[in-house]
Amino acid sequence: MELLLPHPSNSSPLTVLGFLERAASIYGDSPSLLHATTEHTWSETQSRCLRIASTLSSSSLGINPGQVVSVIGPNVPSVYELQFAVPMSGAVLNNINPRLDAHALSVLLRHSESKLVFVDHHSTSLALEAVSFLHKNEKPKLVLLHDDTSPSLTPDVEGFLDTYEGVMERGDPRFKWIRPKTEWLPMVLNYTSGTTSSPKGVVLSHRAVFMSAVNSLLDWSMPNRPVYLWSLPMFHANGWGYTWATAAVGATNVCVRRVDAETVFDLIDKHQVTHMCAAPMVLNMLTNYPNRKRLKIPVRVMTAGAPPPATVISKAEELGFDVGHGYGMTETGGLVVSCAWKPEWDHLEPNERAKMKSRQGVRTAVFAEADVRDPRTGESVKHDGVTVGEIVFRGGSVMLGYYKDYEGSAASMREDGWFYTGDIGVMHPDGYLEVKDRSKDVIICGGENISSTEVETVLYTNPMVKEAAVVAKPDKMWGETLCAFVSLKYDEDRSGPVTEREIREFCKRKLPKYMVPRNVVFQEELPKTSTGKIQKFVLRQMAKSLP
Amino acid sequence: MELLLPHPSNSSPLTVLGFLERAASIYGDSPSLLHATTEHTWSETQSRCLRIASTLSSSSLGINPGQVVSVIGPNVPSVYELQFAVPMSGAVLNNINPRLDAHALSVLLRHSESKLVFVDHHSTSLALEAVSFLHKNEKPKLVLLHDDTSPSLTPDVEGFLDTYEGVMERGDPRFKWIRPKTEWLPMVLNYTSGTTSSPKGVVLSHRAVFMSAVNSLLDWSMPNRPVYLWSLPMFHANGWGYTWATAAVGATNVCVRRVDAETVFDLIDKHQVTHMCAAPMVLNMLTNYPNRKRLKIPVRVMTAGAPPPATVISKAEELGFDVGHGYGMTETGGLVVSCAWKPEWDHLEPNERAKMKSRQGVRTAVFAEADVRDPRTGESVKHDGVTVGEIVFRGGSVMLGYYKDYEGSAASMREDGWFYTGDIGVMHPDGYLEVKDRSKDVIICGGENISSTEVETVLYTNPMVKEAAVVAKPDKMWGETLCAFVSLKYDEDRSGPVTEREIREFCKRKLPKYMVPRNVVFQEELPKTSTGKIQKFVLRQMAKSLP
Repeated sequence: MELLLPHPSNSSPLTVLGFLERAASIYGDSPSLLHATTEHTWSETQSRCLRIASTLSSSSLGINPGQVVSVIGPNVPSVYELQFAVPMSGAVLNNINPRLDAHALSVLLRHSESKLVFVDHHSTSLALEAVSFLHKNEKPKLVLLHDDTSPSLTPDVEGFLDTYEGVMERGDPRFKWIRPKTEWLPMVLNYTSGTTSSPKGVVLSHRAVFMSAVNSLLDWSMPNRPVYLWSLPMFHANGWGYTWATAAVGATNVCVRRVDAETVFDLIDKHQVTHMCAAPMVLNMLTNYPNRKRLKIPVRVMTAGAPPPATVISKAEELGFDVGHGYGMTETGGLVVSCAWKPEWDHLEPNERAKMKSRQGVRTAVFAEADVRDPRTGESVKHDGVTVGEIVFRGGSVMLGYYKDYEGSAASMREDGWFYTGDIGVMHPDGYLEVKDRSKDVIICGGENISSTEVETVLYTNPMVKEAAVVAKPDKMWGETLCAFVSLKYDEDRSGPVTEREIREFCKRKLPKYMVPRNVVFQEELPKTSTGKIQKFVLRQMAKSLP
Repeated sequence: MELLLPHPSNSSPLTVLGFLERAASIYGDSPSLLHATTEHTWSETQSRCLRIASTLSSSSLGINPGQVVSVIGPNVPSVYELQFAVPMSGAVLNNINPRLDAHALSVLLRHSESKLVFVDHHSTSLALEAVSFLHKNEKPKLVLLHDDTSPSLTPDVEGFLDTYEGVMERGDPRFKWIRPKTEWLPMVLNYTSGTTSSPKGVVLSHRAVFMSAVNSLLDWSMPNRPVYLWSLPMFHANGWGYTWATAAVGATNVCVRRVDAETVFDLIDKHQVTHMCAAPMVLNMLTNYPNRKRLKIPVRVMTAGAPPPATVISKAEELGFDVGHGYGMTETGGLVVSCAWKPEWDHLEPNERAKMKSRQGVRTAVFAEADVRDPRTGESVKHDGVTVGEIVFRGGSVMLGYYKDYEGSAASMREDGWFYTGDIGVMHPDGYLEVKDRSKDVIICGGENISSTEVETVLYTNPMVKEAAVVAKPDKMWGETLCAFVSLKYDEDRSGPVTEREIREFCKRKLPKYMVPRNVVFQEELPKTSTGKIQKFVLRQMAKSLP
């Protein structure tokens, strides 16, 4: 057959930005964003985004297409709006974790060459301090983000150029938003949240973001007009793509400034939440909340970001959460593997069901390929559920690369055409993938490769354990030994404290001897990133300094 | 920001073919295809497709990548399998309407240069006759399609190389299916079903088919494991993309050799059908069926292919169908506009609801743009619901072009970057598009442009009218006048026959005088294409010969 070439009518660049005008057309009078006293409709959200985009690209702010605009803030309506408004101006969107310290923030601002930063009113001094570390020609313009929980509007913060509402007022709601010239243009720059200490700038194209949003919608069979609770930070891989996906279905976005168990349960009740995302740590927090109640209406919750212990899943399901489990990373623009439910699992016991659900699963429908390969030879490992290898991906939502890091990009996006994740896993005979560990979290003790996740899973089955993490402790004789960090639940009926010996005895009953932690350290709370991941690199430092 | 280039890990060609291996992984033991005594699982469907694909590309059949393989058959399991198997071998899939006559079929086989044709056992003499019209070097190989309703297996039909099961037996279920080298490669060749007399070969790329399937899934919020009834022919734009979309969600595909009202109601009951597609004519047939019953469980039905009269929609909804309405054409690979339901319509009266639902709607979420433009100037018409113009599209599922028809391609895919549909419509102030007519169906009477669809809509509100179509009749004085063709319902309580005068009086009460048909012709049944569209070009011939 002759080769027919693409034509502008069939090759429109794939982009999520058009979701907004469509939502305004269909759901114009329906709620888009709720927060404290704020209640916006989709028409309002569209004009507000167009106003911001128009001012950004106007001469007063003068952001050029392809330049980076950063956002530092929690899950409030303005931060949602900026997910559309920044790329609609042609700029590249860069969400930054507001819990970083000023030094780390200044590193990211310098690296991204950010021209303008929207800063939440709680983070003004952080931003000013970070900017003070920058050279004069590196300093971005600062714009203050207010919301309806602000004590008062303070338009004149020293060092700030304007307020968000000021930028809004000067904007034109009939602005023609800037469509990307090709779908391969960068739309988003996300710094990885850092379970290691070296953040990297992940660049996602319009096409990748589009595929990620489609993934999110299809994998959940997302209905029209869901009520979506923003329990997952938008600065965490753009809320796994749901910042845009919710516009495609005209969702009500319920915003939350600070996620705690009480707030989450209250908002679920108040707004009849239907969908939410949450890291396993947040699920764990909800199931351990003393005033938890069984939900009146089931809420679909998607968990990812770390392998969730089966007990956390089964406890959440007892409360009435319908738990979906997926797997992805900032580099894949969100979840690209999900534990699709098999009909034959319907009749399993709750524990067995949870165990099945805790496997990461199969690639999502629109993602091309997922495999587990030997990183040295590049060959697929046996699909036996036992042979470990590195998890590799190929598909539409994979990043363009790391920003200004050719070597880092080339190391993970290899010549064999796969993206190497750095995560260790197995492939089960039924084609379901299971993550065993981050490759750097594998502990090698006396020549044996030990998955820290496997030991943690056993620790979580102990009724007194609230949180657990296992890391390597350097050892002259064994190379490495296992060191467990554990936080405990409070139990008033218990007479004495939980002991190291008791935990080790518990592990001995459930694990081979070589997998029993040599050390057990009790902590009030384990150190975590702002996205709820336990910071193993901090624990490794602590383990090293133990006698 | 620096330009980062695509890499094989993020630029896998978009294709629907991977849906099948995923369905086998997740839904391996669940039903994929049901028909008479056939019950296949998704594992079986996958190996059967791989077997067929492997034999096609083996030396015994010797089909090369890019060559055309045709399929002539009704909605039976083998025809479903071929939607995957043919492109998995690297060949281009060409479904042909089995109701064509031998001459028309030979024209398509010659034009497509088809190398092999799978022929349903009911169409063997048709195929042999068509092939007899071809030159020796044009003759394709013929393979016989059997199914479980065949009276007996007859492997040795003169002129046929083999049977489908023979091809299957020689195949390898571990065949590595051929991934397209780029997503712009042709995957499908569909000849338009012909409301005009000149069929054109629409070529769809892998990317277009992928976007069409994603469209189909998202627009319906298609859940996992639906039960899909094949009431829409697979040879009609590949069943609007549902041939592949159903694999993405592990559907049970209920096949139907011959669609009539009794069969449809029986199968809905027997298999607890959840979803189906149907042209408005088929919906009309269901609502006029004497033994119709209210459905026990609501069935979601998507209608498209012609503007559905509001009364047909409201009658179908009374029976328990949940009617969705979309709009697209073979050239757009399926539906690209759909009448997304607005929350504020929930409280309308049933008639008003049906009227809203009969508008074609807004572009689907993943489609780029839809507009109504003046075909002379290329400017958008006013969004006032009144000003007519030509409907134009731009988006991922638009065809690559017409096969071997550079001029036809260039005439519809214009230099301004839009695909011009040839359909006439208006844009409502809320951004909803409404089709008024095929441009060639507009009647110009005394200088007035009259939409035949508008007059038909009025005719359908007459309780005695079963089907209606209005066409132009050449007239010396007026240029054209309106001629209505009507088929009637049977009403035993009525004393005399319905008269031409009665129909004209009815129209006079509801339409401006210039829109009342000059002639009304009664017919037992109106001439239709095999996809249920009324053949207006036939009626125009008849109108011309009227006194």
